[in-house]
Amino acid sequence: MRVRNKPWAPELIEAHPDLIVEKGQEFKGKWHERFAKKQPLFIEVGTGKGQFIINMAKKYPQYNFIGIEIQKTVIAIALKNALEEQLPNLQFLYADGAELTDYFEDHEVSKVFLNFSDPWPKTRHEKRRLTFKSFLKVYEQILIEHGVVEFKTDNQGLFEYSLSSLNNYGMHFDGVWLDLHHSEENDENVETEYEHKFSAKGQPIYKVRAHF
Amino acid sequence: MRVRNKPWAPELIEAHPDLIVEKGQEFKGKWHERFAKKQPLFIEVGTGKGQFIINMAKKYPQYNFIGIEIQKTVIAIALKNALEEQLPNLQFLYADGAELTDYFEDHEVSKVFLNFSDPWPKTRHEKRRLTFKSFLKVYEQILIEHGVVEFKTDNQGLFEYSLSSLNNYGMHFDGVWLDLHHSEENDENVETEYEHKFSAKGQPIYKVRAHF
Repeated sequence: MRVRNKPWAPELIEAHPDLIVEKGQEFKGKWHERFAKKQPLFIEVGTGKGQFIINMAKKYPQYNFIGIEIQKTVIAIALKNALEEQLPNLQFLYADGAELTDYFEDHEVSKVFLNFSDPWPKTRHEKRRLTFKSFLKVYEQILIEHGVVEFKTDNQGLFEYSLSSLNNYGMHFDGVWLDLHHSEENDENVETEYEHKFSAKGQPIYKVRAHF
Repeated sequence: MRVRNKPWAPELIEAHPDLIVEKGQEFKGKWHERFAKKQPLFIEVGTGKGQFIINMAKKYPQYNFIGIEIQKTVIAIALKNALEEQLPNLQFLYADGAELTDYFEDHEVSKVFLNFSDPWPKTRHEKRRLTFKSFLKVYEQILIEHGVVEFKTDNQGLFEYSLSSLNNYGMHFDGVWLDLHHSEENDENVETEYEHKFSAKGQPIYKVRAHF
């Protein structure tokens, strides 16, 4: 996601240390301290403007959520959107998805969401895709045993690649959807901003749910 | 595939024992005797009217092919189509795909093709789908080590199911294509009659190549 730089972004982030973390290392192994309740932790890697993670936190008060985003301006927008909601089970982490093991203790996380990640279509950029094996290794490490990854995309090439990558890593598929919005699985679907815009054009949304 | 009964079908089959086998048990472990050359054996389970297997045999003289079909009238049509070609590397087997271990010795087959199999969409018919685990077990037994299964379909539900089924069985994906006819993989694609008709309407063809 590319957005224009917002001069107010760094200030907004600094003004809300209760809701957004810039030094994730400090909470490794003790993220539960930042939430009202100690309950299973779900994270979204590449949270964008936050629509998905905010609505998930509203829908599922029985879980804690962290939206992780590497772009400062983008996560500032997510933060701004979240401020209106005052959700006791939602936090943001300004960080790089490749370094999750610096921020989360082994088995600290119950589920990882990947939504509409950058497809990095060129073969030489394969390693940057969030479903590349080095990322899967990181998710496996921070997830509980048999921890789940849920991945949604509209990008056909990335989905084809990801099915093979997850399979080749040894992950076990719980379900595959080639047109999520016209499936029963959609009854429980929480959309991202991008997904909403994209699917309105009638394009299919792909999804896979898999566990280690 | 449903076709009207053809009164000439049984006679045509009886007239060509050189090209079609009705008692597959007799050739278990020695199918190579029915071909001009001893070379890797590829089989298609549910060969329909034969367009795929006939064109494969023409394109790849370095492999032997067997088209297997459970419907007598349908395989008679395939036989009729093959008669014009006189291919030394093509045979037909009138048999049930569930009983392949009766007809093939362990590790006798190098590759299994499944093309546009009956989707059996009702959950209670899951066991009839050619990608159900009991069929995978049969393919694994008759295939060489790391033997390949190639599966094509236009049926979204069957493809979603099959990806999970193959994955859950422990098969290793070599490639997944969600729109075969608009991919590089299509350069080597050999169409079935059904595929040709269906894709002309602009519908996507799905494919997975996986090995045990």
